[in-house]
Amino acid sequence: MSPIEPGRYAGAICKDWDIAGNANGGYLLALAARAMMAETGAPDPVTITAHYLSPGKVGAVLAAVQTVRRGRRFAVATASLTASGKPLIQVLGTFGELGASAGVVERIDAAPPDLPTPESCVRHDPVGGAPRLYGSIDLRLHPADAGFKHGDPSGLLLSRGWFRLRDDEHMDALALLLAVDAFPPAVFNGCLPVAWTPTLELTVHLRARPAPGWLRARFSTRFVSAGFLEEDGEIWDSEDRLVAQSRQLALVPLGEA
Amino acid sequence: MSPIEPGRYAGAICKDWDIAGNANGGYLLALAARAMMAETGAPDPVTITAHYLSPGKVGAVLAAVQTVRRGRRFAVATASLTASGKPLIQVLGTFGELGASAGVVERIDAAPPDLPTPESCVRHDPVGGAPRLYGSIDLRLHPADAGFKHGDPSGLLLSRGWFRLRDDEHMDALALLLAVDAFPPAVFNGCLPVAWTPTLELTVHLRARPAPGWLRARFSTRFVSAGFLEEDGEIWDSEDRLVAQSRQLALVPLGEA
Repeated sequence: MSPIEPGRYAGAICKDWDIAGNANGGYLLALAARAMMAETGAPDPVTITAHYLSPGKVGAVLAAVQTVRRGRRFAVATASLTASGKPLIQVLGTFGELGASAGVVERIDAAPPDLPTPESCVRHDPVGGAPRLYGSIDLRLHPADAGFKHGDPSGLLLSRGWFRLRDDEHMDALALLLAVDAFPPAVFNGCLPVAWTPTLELTVHLRARPAPGWLRARFSTRFVSAGFLEEDGEIWDSEDRLVAQSRQLALVPLGEA
Repeated sequence: MSPIEPGRYAGAICKDWDIAGNANGGYLLALAARAMMAETGAPDPVTITAHYLSPGKVGAVLAAVQTVRRGRRFAVATASLTASGKPLIQVLGTFGELGASAGVVERIDAAPPDLPTPESCVRHDPVGGAPRLYGSIDLRLHPADAGFKHGDPSGLLLSRGWFRLRDDEHMDALALLLAVDAFPPAVFNGCLPVAWTPTLELTVHLRARPAPGWLRARFSTRFVSAGFLEEDGEIWDSEDRLVAQSRQLALVPLGEA
């Protein structure tokens, strides 16, 4: 995303960053976040929410960014990402510097997911190359969570695995926005007639910039009800630190079985 | 919140809706949501996120609402709630009609919290009366999660209990926004030097309008790290339905022990 006038950034949804013709939701969020970071001057997203308005197709996009508050430690901004005047996502985020707080109080009541080695996991290729934003993704699913790919879902609403950028390309905090929306939906392992889970809203909390190396991710769904489902994600880095949490609300379309 | 011109609504933070002089975050969110529902014409919030910019004090507030997209089923809007021109919260939400989708696919991998009767729980009074929005709150904490009140925290990052409006006043979906921010922070039971958890961001997903009667709520924190903590909430109604999920990101201030 390049500045074209105050508060306006131009960029593009590049070829191959799609699922069935539509741009990946994490990719759209990363495009908007990049413009918001440029506008606020803050180096990292801390908490960011996108509401999905219409599918992004390959081509030019424009981000209109407004800084709502600029504080000592955090800046809050809104952004609208559009294509040919059509709104794609509306975004609200707080930005700052991850790692600025030492975190004297620490308590973690969880652990990274226990995964077989990346070599023993199942390659999953949801999206292809991503020129101009990143190279491409290397995603390996836990074999226990990959059964849905050949009609043998586990019955557990889980999607766990490894994530990195291909050729071990450096991952910044923004890359975590890709990671939280790149895995297949956990509900696909549920033996349920759910073929499609369009995202209404995605929120990501970022705790730290990831250390080099593979990320481990765990996505789970507990509530498929009233036509909606939530999917919660955790991303851990190679130093066993939680680097991001995500939650999305998705539709469970009727008659899509 | 009353309309004063297109996209502008006036209201007030009323006396007694505060914690140590600052308005409760759920109360501010409900004020903004009410204006957004009026502007979009949608009867319920479906997913709504607020970023907290500065504390709300008793007095007049103004909501500026912009509808970003109006679709067949959902409307997306942003709102800025200000007091004397100072931004209090920035909000982004998707609105629609809860219960409009029958939800042919249902799967719940969770249960309402197991609580002693309301009479056997511990009254907790975080906020007083709320004239003009609701009456006031009746909140009963699980005795196991109320130890922090007398210096005997359980060690578990949990805050569970019952919630209703006093005199059994009718609870609409908006009342759930109050419920998700009315309980004491789960981290208070953690035997940690945390006296204060200012909210950066709060997201609420609403699944259904609550049935009459007591709500049961469960709040938990798993990650206190890097100067932040998340708190996840679930609200269940008297018919054992999940009616709302919440997640907030809060600061864990340094040197506040």
